Amino acid sequence: MPTEVYVAGVGMTKFGKSDLSLPHLMVEAASRAILDARVSTIDYVFIGVMSVEEFTGESNFAALITDRLGLPGIPSSRVETASSTGSAVFESAFYAVASGYHRNVLIIAGEKMTHLPTAQTTRILAEVIDRGERKYGASMPSLAAMITRRYQHDAQLSDDRLQSILSKLAIKNHYNGSLNPYAQFRKIITGDDYFGSRYISTPLRTYDCAPITDGAVAVVLTLDKKSIRVTGLGHATDTLAVRHRDSLTSFKSTRLAAWQAYNMAKLSPKDISFAEVHDAFTPFEIIGTEDLGFFPHGEGWKAVEEGVTSIKGRLPINPSGGLKARGHPVGASGLAQIVEVAQQLRGDMEPNRQIPGARIGLTQNIGGLANNNLVTILERTDRYRPIPVYWKPNYDPGDINPRPVPEEPSSVDSGILETYTTLYTTPEGIPSPLTLGFLSIPDGRVIMARSRHENLKIGQAVKVEKEGDLFYLQPSPPPEKGSEGAKKWLHRALSPTERKEENP
Amino acid sequence: MPTEVYVAGVGMTKFGKSDLSLPHLMVEAASRAILDARVSTIDYVFIGVMSVEEFTGESNFAALITDRLGLPGIPSSRVETASSTGSAVFESAFYAVASGYHRNVLIIAGEKMTHLPTAQTTRILAEVIDRGERKYGASMPSLAAMITRRYQHDAQLSDDRLQSILSKLAIKNHYNGSLNPYAQFRKIITGDDYFGSRYISTPLRTYDCAPITDGAVAVVLTLDKKSIRVTGLGHATDTLAVRHRDSLTSFKSTRLAAWQAYNMAKLSPKDISFAEVHDAFTPFEIIGTEDLGFFPHGEGWKAVEEGVTSIKGRLPINPSGGLKARGHPVGASGLAQIVEVAQQLRGDMEPNRQIPGARIGLTQNIGGLANNNLVTILERTDRYRPIPVYWKPNYDPGDINPRPVPEEPSSVDSGILETYTTLYTTPEGIPSPLTLGFLSIPDGRVIMARSRHENLKIGQAVKVEKEGDLFYLQPSPPPEKGSEGAKKWLHRALSPTERKEENP
Repeated sequence: MPTEVYVAGVGMTKFGKSDLSLPHLMVEAASRAILDARVSTIDYVFIGVMSVEEFTGESNFAALITDRLGLPGIPSSRVETASSTGSAVFESAFYAVASGYHRNVLIIAGEKMTHLPTAQTTRILAEVIDRGERKYGASMPSLAAMITRRYQHDAQLSDDRLQSILSKLAIKNHYNGSLNPYAQFRKIITGDDYFGSRYISTPLRTYDCAPITDGAVAVVLTLDKKSIRVTGLGHATDTLAVRHRDSLTSFKSTRLAAWQAYNMAKLSPKDISFAEVHDAFTPFEIIGTEDLGFFPHGEGWKAVEEGVTSIKGRLPINPSGGLKARGHPVGASGLAQIVEVAQQLRGDMEPNRQIPGARIGLTQNIGGLANNNLVTILERTDRYRPIPVYWKPNYDPGDINPRPVPEEPSSVDSGILETYTTLYTTPEGIPSPLTLGFLSIPDGRVIMARSRHENLKIGQAVKVEKEGDLFYLQPSPPPEKGSEGAKKWLHRALSPTERKEENP
Repeated sequence: MPTEVYVAGVGMTKFGKSDLSLPHLMVEAASRAILDARVSTIDYVFIGVMSVEEFTGESNFAALITDRLGLPGIPSSRVETASSTGSAVFESAFYAVASGYHRNVLIIAGEKMTHLPTAQTTRILAEVIDRGERKYGASMPSLAAMITRRYQHDAQLSDDRLQSILSKLAIKNHYNGSLNPYAQFRKIITGDDYFGSRYISTPLRTYDCAPITDGAVAVVLTLDKKSIRVTGLGHATDTLAVRHRDSLTSFKSTRLAAWQAYNMAKLSPKDISFAEVHDAFTPFEIIGTEDLGFFPHGEGWKAVEEGVTSIKGRLPINPSGGLKARGHPVGASGLAQIVEVAQQLRGDMEPNRQIPGARIGLTQNIGGLANNNLVTILERTDRYRPIPVYWKPNYDPGDINPRPVPEEPSSVDSGILETYTTLYTTPEGIPSPLTLGFLSIPDGRVIMARSRHENLKIGQAVKVEKEGDLFYLQPSPPPEKGSEGAKKWLHRALSPTERKEENP
């Protein structure tokens, strides 16, 4: 029988642009959580922060925060997994309590980002990206945009329908944020606002991307029985390079983490009352709800259209406003998701945003471009417990097999365009706009390439040339109709449904 | 009964200057540890690295390493506590195993430092220092040098005797390193070498300071019974600012961590067969052995003179060569200490450096300027276990009391010099040489100040002026003899022994 771990207290600062220092924000969040927890001792302080050295020029941050808390002496460690740091630090703190060596553990996660120029912040955030993709000027929004375009293609959504779905997501999460006093954006937005916003990286607009945010969050975990218990934890990695993945439209790291969390909790997706899903980019909320087993793959967008995931819907997603509207201090977002879930479960919310009868909540937090993801499940301890299940996922959770990283090819003549984007907000030192694509090459590998043409189409044949250490693509005439090459290439360009129709 | 955690396997790269990338070094160390452990599954990968973003421009490093290992899918988190990262990541991994949620956990710690100019590395390492001290140009060696000078003063050691003791430490650790195939420096040094080396920060010379090093280390922890068990863990912080400490010559963070580790293991200092002690600077080995309870405070230097801590002595300290000779890849050193202890306990060493009959080994690892320290105890499982004790330390382990960080005074007229140094290897952007001191001011606070005079003396009265946001000191005539001020100042200038004589 494993040791049970409970949430004793939670606290956070308002998210947004702040003139306060990161230590100040973190002490504020911690003070609230300690007061809320009503514990008289803290045995360990876990600190979650992603890029504090680069954002603020401080290292040795665990000792610094413990000192600023007026608690020098207490042991303290910093945990980091890029943008899933908030959940990862919660996980390590959970183990410290579950091991029986610490009774009350304080977790504080935060980030200070708004004080730097956007291009510099974009460059720092882009350090999470595989070097082979980063050297092309790829940023987080551009990789997310390429994933979105492939999702659109596979789900056979027209441009207008995709934009309509994404706008509904942005409007939903901004609405939820308008109700959340801790959210960075508390304004309702309309379709006109959405369609009037500029492209960051096609097809993603400003309102599809989580903002740059300052903020801090804290949680106290304890061995003593409290109203909220941590029942599920899952954590999995994936290849650093997006181009080396099995799928561009589903994240194996979420699927594996969800499977672990459900099985630790002995729950299935249908037991979840509501969830906080990592919407650093609006389409990631759709992919997340599919990977978590809430909806079939390629169909999560229907739930958005039908309002299923609205705060008054059957399965509210991101009642907090999500990363989109609550804001995204990168190292803190995962812990903010956990705080939202704990407060909803405790019934702490104002009536206009309280999810009635919520019994079990889930968070999904993405690290990097979905290569270090965590899923966390919290439950009320005073409510009916579902019959324990061993959940068999309705998808392949993916395998963990040692396998070599594919070598980068030294020269490439031609390929098929798997997906592409035009990036307008480029990292420091890269001219804008920048068109990037992923190409399948004849031996089955996938490479990244730049393009001087913006007018591209998934599935089209392209010629490839190398300039320096970068590949450049340009559209080429398709292979002769009816040839083997044409058949193979045509097949790759089909969406999954079209492929099924091709081979019934 | 807590869950028992065992060391299943260990591995490391040779330490030194390497042309290999940090991921390459870490995969090499991990491969050795996995082979040594003979485990068929790894359930979690913990990564320890201090300043990878600044040293190498990579973030999201836990996912990157898991990918390079060919293990995408496996959960992975990075843990960081400045220069004690190697021990802190071991501690978090210990909790993950002790919690019962993971059977086999791989820990990999590493750092790549030698590729940057020394001034840049010094600047990055100086980011661990409190901003109020860093702004004066204080680096790690200069703070260590000021601590050394105060230790010399309190222990009433002449300049010659201090230098003789420090040279014996450097010679001992270089001798031990000469026997260690993984050490950066494998050459024996002589007194002539020591005294011929230049001052980094008076009174510390090149041979008193651990080098800049590349390297990686790995350990596999397991729930399955093995020959080595982790029996003691202690971890404590202290104020970030050195000037706000109760003592300049003893580290509360070591004392607290040692006390916790001995009590978790139910051991006392006399049960320890040998220890790896964090000698980033030679005098820290002396202070460490005192804080660990091996020798009385202010008397650790005698053990060096008498050869007690030599590899053939009664209590070998740093049989590996220590940070001084094995090298100091900052994020990896703590785990390298643990590997040395595990291998000594297993009897794996070549006969010329095997400590015979070693049963229990200890490591002490310093984070920052001794504000995030860990103590770890490993034991053989097949040997006689001492009668469990609750160890009452022969010193005050220090208290953990919430207390405010003292405000920096806005203006200061005069003070008493507590300690000082002249720094020759200054951080990037600071002219060399640079003389720094700590001053007690009349209200009891301690401030840092620069000096344009190098010829100073602990206990002397100084005048203070402010230029910009920095204090500058200059020697002033002492207060009138027999006055209250003179008595107070004279008392502060006395060493502890002289004070005892003053008030018997």
